[in-house]
Amino acid sequence: MTEELLKGVRNNDHVCISRLITLVENAPLLEKSPLQDLNSNKKSIRIGITGPPGAGKSTLTNELIETILANGKTVGIIAVDPTSPFTGGSLLGDRVRMNKYMWDDRVFIRSMGSHGDLGGLAHKSQDVSDVLEASGKDFIIFETVGVGQGEIDIASAADITIVVLVPESGDEIQLMKAGLIEIADIFVVNKSDRSGANKLASLLKNILHYFSKNNRKEPEVFNVVSTKSIGIAELYLGIQNLLMLMKDNGTLEQRRISRSKDRVYNKVSEYLGKVFWTSNKKDKLKKVLKLSDSKSLNINWVIQQILSE
Amino acid sequence: MTEELLKGVRNNDHVCISRLITLVENAPLLEKSPLQDLNSNKKSIRIGITGPPGAGKSTLTNELIETILANGKTVGIIAVDPTSPFTGGSLLGDRVRMNKYMWDDRVFIRSMGSHGDLGGLAHKSQDVSDVLEASGKDFIIFETVGVGQGEIDIASAADITIVVLVPESGDEIQLMKAGLIEIADIFVVNKSDRSGANKLASLLKNILHYFSKNNRKEPEVFNVVSTKSIGIAELYLGIQNLLMLMKDNGTLEQRRISRSKDRVYNKVSEYLGKVFWTSNKKDKLKKVLKLSDSKSLNINWVIQQILSE
Repeated sequence: MTEELLKGVRNNDHVCISRLITLVENAPLLEKSPLQDLNSNKKSIRIGITGPPGAGKSTLTNELIETILANGKTVGIIAVDPTSPFTGGSLLGDRVRMNKYMWDDRVFIRSMGSHGDLGGLAHKSQDVSDVLEASGKDFIIFETVGVGQGEIDIASAADITIVVLVPESGDEIQLMKAGLIEIADIFVVNKSDRSGANKLASLLKNILHYFSKNNRKEPEVFNVVSTKSIGIAELYLGIQNLLMLMKDNGTLEQRRISRSKDRVYNKVSEYLGKVFWTSNKKDKLKKVLKLSDSKSLNINWVIQQILSE
Repeated sequence: MTEELLKGVRNNDHVCISRLITLVENAPLLEKSPLQDLNSNKKSIRIGITGPPGAGKSTLTNELIETILANGKTVGIIAVDPTSPFTGGSLLGDRVRMNKYMWDDRVFIRSMGSHGDLGGLAHKSQDVSDVLEASGKDFIIFETVGVGQGEIDIASAADITIVVLVPESGDEIQLMKAGLIEIADIFVVNKSDRSGANKLASLLKNILHYFSKNNRKEPEVFNVVSTKSIGIAELYLGIQNLLMLMKDNGTLEQRRISRSKDRVYNKVSEYLGKVFWTSNKKDKLKKVLKLSDSKSLNINWVIQQILSE
């Protein structure tokens, strides 16, 4: 049954892909991961797209899909909404997209909600992208609603990260303190037919120049009007050029290795925790914590008690 | 030697406190924690103070110290700067404070830098506050430079969290999306002799009313001018009232239990990771990751290899 499913995925059967993703999303324990026997002979280019709500990330993604297809390539989309408890294509915009590409084997779209567990979401979205990679997609796009830690986690899942802003995002410069400058490889000023677009673009370039470090290429800024398909070809070319550069100087490989390493560490940590915290140990902890009524609790002593259980 | 140190801490000897904190900060492994035999018969009130740079957190903290002393109580200050790699009283403002209270047994001040490890900082600052608790301090104040995730971690270390804003912080309302509303038990509008203070206070009250949940008291907003000692007595009273309320309805105990639980889980997780990742396993992982040159790497397969080592 699983064997057939994996075969289906490798043959880019979208029904099988969808089923395996659901299995992966609900996989309880690492040892039983259905992905263990899933191997891929190619590496997808993983692109993260993030930015504040209203920046037009979905429209930009749609334009990128079309450009990718026009270049004879295939693409998987993982739309991540950390604020939504829903999953499986529940976003309205996604429904429209999904209908458009329903019979198109070159495009696979999946929405993921957080179930209230941000960290878990970042892990699972990586597993899902492994499935899409095994199906042979050339590109995988992570599209995420930008809200703090979640977007940074998601960015760590991508080869390159595009941060989308709009001319009105002047205030969003504030947000950059929160780490957007660190994660962005490319900036897109979307809706660039509005006033203030050039101002924002040059402000961004100044900031980027100021913050640029020696060990990293300064992110490029692209002016785009997604709704009119303006600037998309230039952006696509920019992505290709950046990827080529990163391949040549080794940063692409470096990022992939460090990403894999992080994933292994995170998964092992999750696994160790699950094995360690037997219901016995959980009960014991619960009891000890309740004893702490008047006296201060010595955490390190508590841990000794539980380790020696 | 450690026995004597612990005795000194329990006798509120500030030199011993300082030494034990350094030991704790550098403690490599959980099992050897010097805190294991440190017990405290009282519980300090732990107050977190956070807010954007320039809001006057240090001046407010200084005023609180004076009010606490005037009420015959003692206090420990843990100044946390996640952006600073330095530790041990390196901040200029702290040096001034430290000099002021150098010979005062009622006030102990410690600065902590991040060493580039935010999560670790949150853990360590809790260990440090255990030392201060054992020395008998009535209050422990965590003062933190507000920058995203760090401040939320630090807030989780406190019984109550005070968020400090200034009239100019109108834009900082933006920041509230990032979780300040969730962590604040009390809001202080500092520098309230400036124009816009009342506007900000009522805006805040509206927002808080809108976001308030049934299971929690709506945070109070206090107008304060720290540099002129205006509003400090009211704030101190507000803190006392809130603590009494939280004691009565059980939320104080609830928070302390859930905080202890989180600490145990985090420390155990750290411990399990350290035990698991022998240099053999690390080497193996490094080798496997380097093999991933052209083929995609199956993370779940890698983990199986390492688990079966």
